[in-house]
Amino acid sequence: MSLLVVGSIALDSVITPFGETADDPGGSALFFSAAAALLHPVQVVGVVGRDYPLGALKRLEARGIDLGGVETADGESFRWKGKYSYDLSSRETLETRLGVFAGFQPKLPPAFRDAKYVFLGNIDPELQLGVLDQVKAPRLVACDTMNYWIQSKRDVLLQLLRHIDYLIINDTEARELSGDWNIYRAARWVLTHGPRGVVIKQGEYGAILMDAEMLFKVPAYPLEEVFDPTGAGDAFAGGFMGHVARTGDLSPDNLRLAMVYGAAMGSFAVEEFGIRRFDDVDRDEVEARVRGFRDLVHFDHGLGGTP
Amino acid sequence: MSLLVVGSIALDSVITPFGETADDPGGSALFFSAAAALLHPVQVVGVVGRDYPLGALKRLEARGIDLGGVETADGESFRWKGKYSYDLSSRETLETRLGVFAGFQPKLPPAFRDAKYVFLGNIDPELQLGVLDQVKAPRLVACDTMNYWIQSKRDVLLQLLRHIDYLIINDTEARELSGDWNIYRAARWVLTHGPRGVVIKQGEYGAILMDAEMLFKVPAYPLEEVFDPTGAGDAFAGGFMGHVARTGDLSPDNLRLAMVYGAAMGSFAVEEFGIRRFDDVDRDEVEARVRGFRDLVHFDHGLGGTP
Repeated sequence: MSLLVVGSIALDSVITPFGETADDPGGSALFFSAAAALLHPVQVVGVVGRDYPLGALKRLEARGIDLGGVETADGESFRWKGKYSYDLSSRETLETRLGVFAGFQPKLPPAFRDAKYVFLGNIDPELQLGVLDQVKAPRLVACDTMNYWIQSKRDVLLQLLRHIDYLIINDTEARELSGDWNIYRAARWVLTHGPRGVVIKQGEYGAILMDAEMLFKVPAYPLEEVFDPTGAGDAFAGGFMGHVARTGDLSPDNLRLAMVYGAAMGSFAVEEFGIRRFDDVDRDEVEARVRGFRDLVHFDHGLGGTP
Repeated sequence: MSLLVVGSIALDSVITPFGETADDPGGSALFFSAAAALLHPVQVVGVVGRDYPLGALKRLEARGIDLGGVETADGESFRWKGKYSYDLSSRETLETRLGVFAGFQPKLPPAFRDAKYVFLGNIDPELQLGVLDQVKAPRLVACDTMNYWIQSKRDVLLQLLRHIDYLIINDTEARELSGDWNIYRAARWVLTHGPRGVVIKQGEYGAILMDAEMLFKVPAYPLEEVFDPTGAGDAFAGGFMGHVARTGDLSPDNLRLAMVYGAAMGSFAVEEFGIRRFDDVDRDEVEARVRGFRDLVHFDHGLGGTP
């Protein structure tokens, strides 16, 4: 029951109040994989330039991440540089250099075409559709996008929505896509446009899952120290999809739990720069954090009773 | 085990994208009482001018709200006028006329001095201290405040913190009081300054409770239609304190449940202008909404297991 991700493999330069990095491995496919691989093996489709530090990728392979779909192209790797505000609540993009990502045409190795669980990271929706064409019989397809595609390729994006199961986006994107500022109405809008479910990420406020059967909310894990929010959303998707793939259970109760694994992975992502925190997270720590979420939100309605 | 509230009794004029009101009953004491009285009788201490519409107060008396501590003074009632943004996420105060509230000196009727549960609504911290002096042996005292007092009467406020059990404030106030933008560090700061617990309300994102034993998060109830956010925080406090007073149970598990009652009452408050929604909420509807919170956040970690 393989899990496939297609997305960017980047070199990120990030400035936060706590320090900065230069050309650190990042991008949606790496954040997703670093998180998901704690739960289930991952197959990655992406592209890097000849300048990409291969040592970083080798370390990921050792964790069950199959990079057989990562092409090395002539040219420079995708680079992103951003600066966060003092409280990390907003960020400014200082530089984006697409490099080899500009000509990215995802091609799945034959072995990847049997993937049952697919995550289409934030790339051009035409390419996302192209990836779907190459997967034989996926059991669950989830997809991310961003404001740029919502504005510039809305029609293709709407076509894509009819072919996916879960849309996983943030609140700003949900509002822009639906044209509705109320997040629950925005979620309902998505459900009427194809997907069977929608996950809306709200950063430090957690995330919601809405489908025909339920509305579920998971908070963000309470952290007194946050170093770098970059990639938290992709790590969330990695936790969500990793749990779904390892259990193969699409029941509402298990999707709730997948949301909690997503939130756990998002919380790890922000505790260090880039994907570094995943270097030392093990499965026990993942399970401990999931239990932490239980302590955080559970309550017993039976108590006290009605007088 | 009586529940006492001291706070403002106002006439609010509110403009939202969905309509506007003029001189509608409001103020912290009324929002608190309208919510709390669904769970437990409430004693109110406050002041109104001779112009206050007594019919509104009579309707509250019929619901178990004892207005024996509401003084009628010569002069105009406290009036507040505000306008909300299109998505209700921010508001502008257009006018504040203190009227008789400017000279408010809370005096507890003898019967009120035996109160076991006390909520000090947002008034001058000197007056809040004065109320505490009049209560003989309270079992739990909770307190609200606002940025104005944090700036202008910080020393008195810090003195007050040493005499209360729970501080119930919003995230902006918590950040300003503690000088820390991280909400969890801000909560911890409060715990080192006297209170045994702190509730931080985050509007549409819910609320957290932190004490020495736990950190609990309750989301806001998912509403597709919100009409008027005014008073939601005081209704939250009313639900929290009402549940504590009716159960008399200060255990961590019951305080979690009190938070959920708080969130339920906050969600009712915003569904109509002013305190009107509480005219038709009954206890069954309250319990149904609390069950709704359970459906919203509960998950079972046992599912799927660790491979």
